[in-house]
Amino acid sequence: MFNDRIYNFSAGPSMLPLPVLEQAAAELTNYRGSGMSVMEMSHRSKIYLSIFEETKADLKRILNVPETHEVLFMQGGAWLQFAAVPMNLMGAAGKADYAVTGNFSKLAMKEAQKYGQVTIAASSEDRNHTYIPPQEALSVSPDASYFYYCANNTIYGTEWQYVPETNGVPLVCDMSSNIMSKPIDISKYGLIFAGVQKNMAPAGMAVVIIDKKLAGKEFPFTPTMLSYQKMIDTDSMHNTPPCYTIYMLGLVLKWIDSQGGLTAMEKLKKERAGILYSFLDESKLFKSCADKDARSDMNVTFRTGDDALDDKFAKEAAKAGFENLKGHRAVGGMRASIYNAMPVEGVIKLVEFMKKFEMENK
Amino acid sequence: MFNDRIYNFSAGPSMLPLPVLEQAAAELTNYRGSGMSVMEMSHRSKIYLSIFEETKADLKRILNVPETHEVLFMQGGAWLQFAAVPMNLMGAAGKADYAVTGNFSKLAMKEAQKYGQVTIAASSEDRNHTYIPPQEALSVSPDASYFYYCANNTIYGTEWQYVPETNGVPLVCDMSSNIMSKPIDISKYGLIFAGVQKNMAPAGMAVVIIDKKLAGKEFPFTPTMLSYQKMIDTDSMHNTPPCYTIYMLGLVLKWIDSQGGLTAMEKLKKERAGILYSFLDESKLFKSCADKDARSDMNVTFRTGDDALDDKFAKEAAKAGFENLKGHRAVGGMRASIYNAMPVEGVIKLVEFMKKFEMENK
Repeated sequence: MFNDRIYNFSAGPSMLPLPVLEQAAAELTNYRGSGMSVMEMSHRSKIYLSIFEETKADLKRILNVPETHEVLFMQGGAWLQFAAVPMNLMGAAGKADYAVTGNFSKLAMKEAQKYGQVTIAASSEDRNHTYIPPQEALSVSPDASYFYYCANNTIYGTEWQYVPETNGVPLVCDMSSNIMSKPIDISKYGLIFAGVQKNMAPAGMAVVIIDKKLAGKEFPFTPTMLSYQKMIDTDSMHNTPPCYTIYMLGLVLKWIDSQGGLTAMEKLKKERAGILYSFLDESKLFKSCADKDARSDMNVTFRTGDDALDDKFAKEAAKAGFENLKGHRAVGGMRASIYNAMPVEGVIKLVEFMKKFEMENK
Repeated sequence: MFNDRIYNFSAGPSMLPLPVLEQAAAELTNYRGSGMSVMEMSHRSKIYLSIFEETKADLKRILNVPETHEVLFMQGGAWLQFAAVPMNLMGAAGKADYAVTGNFSKLAMKEAQKYGQVTIAASSEDRNHTYIPPQEALSVSPDASYFYYCANNTIYGTEWQYVPETNGVPLVCDMSSNIMSKPIDISKYGLIFAGVQKNMAPAGMAVVIIDKKLAGKEFPFTPTMLSYQKMIDTDSMHNTPPCYTIYMLGLVLKWIDSQGGLTAMEKLKKERAGILYSFLDESKLFKSCADKDARSDMNVTFRTGDDALDDKFAKEAAKAGFENLKGHRAVGGMRASIYNAMPVEGVIKLVEFMKKFEMENK
């Protein structure tokens, strides 16, 4: 499969399935006989709308989005959603709960403080975000506008293994780094958002899935483009959407279908992560960073305990064709991001390389 | 040049130069031996940063951006800038002047009303935006935070032929549909923004050029991602930027260079528009919509005066390979958008087709 391509363990933007890239390349100057690139199509033309509608329908079907919810395509990445969420939802009660289990939930929490009273409902900061607080440790305010958490902590390599029970308080979740990796029960969520650049498409968009009854309560100073109600009313086309990114998402969704849907994605992610964690648990040199019961299947963090050796590893790995294994600058060590598009073979070869490195450096 | 490609007169997203699309296609699965698509690169990797820096440097050089100004890449299109501009700049004096010469300046004006006191400094609404008010008709408030106008009115086919004199009040301009079509004196502007999907790249980004001394005065409730100061401080990388769109912009800039830069773009746009307007001025069937001294070189609006005939024309034109000539739904008639990537040949062939249609329908 790989030929001249490398194994790219980047946390995002990250690998896309090769057949998707090949199809995009083949259609780039002339989309299926239209005489145009998708990049050149008017977003209101019939031909583009058919791409848009099919992509949205595929997304709804694959994620099993119920009728109560709407799918939105918005710009600005997950970061702009850190503001959009409180600008739309905070007004209901003026306060919200945030579970802080990593860098991005902390940043989202700080952004929300601009718009209302924010309570830290749980935090894993005491042990450098190496674990996920259990349900009984969550302090859920029954009168909050919403309860917010980040399902997978890309930087720290932890992942929530359960869906928080909030007893009716709308649940808001940043799924940027694990959406599309397994089936989820959308009906449990008031709002899900995800930057697309990990498991869905090239960077430049966020997918928002919102329970329609939560929309329409934005602050008067909320920009029109950030109003969920306006986006629902205009089917994400209040202005020109990021058309090509949506097309790429469509190709990725077709690829997910071809692989067997989210059930297959879940099986594959368990296989990939299992290979890597099994090795880490046996290794005398490499140690997994996250608590066993909180480990992420998407981002595997590990270290040798020696910064210079970590550095040497990342550099030698890159030379051998395993790119972007250096950990995030906030935590150091190493991180292997193994999203949907990473073939199992890539993880097997990485482990082979790690074994070799361990032999040479003991 | 065209082979299997059509002439696409879409107002945006619109044509991109074929050599740009061909290069993008060739590099799509493996960018210059890196083993990755640009779509898959970490935005903080050396290889991607070299693309980013080169694109930004080319943009600054081609537009002759002075040291006082910074170039930002932001998401959300021009529409999100309608909010970002007042959220960042309105605070200085709490009021701003807007020249309303079309649909988008009117929408920008309405969005700004959320954030301060807005005065209509000029309007062409009395004659359905078929003209541009002269300098002496502009009512400039000397104590306004800024003066806002839209340089080219895509829907109505008018274009400002002069730069408003505001006597020191910062000038803010939406150049979405005529940026890169001619040299401009950036130093006259406090802020320029432009959605990229007409003359620069595929949809999904806005380029902002800001006099740095205007930044840093945003309202406390301005989303971090919309803070010009934050974007300046982080070199447009506070979060993952729309990496691939920036890469495409880079290819378009190289193409502009290869054609002779903005002087060549200006010569070509005059040639294209000249051919079309000369024909319209002679035609017994087709009439140009805009006043002669306000005509846009980017969007040429015309009509027969008979809605059914307009419709027939647009349909027959599409069949003949001239796509997207139907006027905007707000005004009807026809519109030929002839941005940088439209070859002169495309306009010559369109005029031939119009002459034939005129013969057949007199």
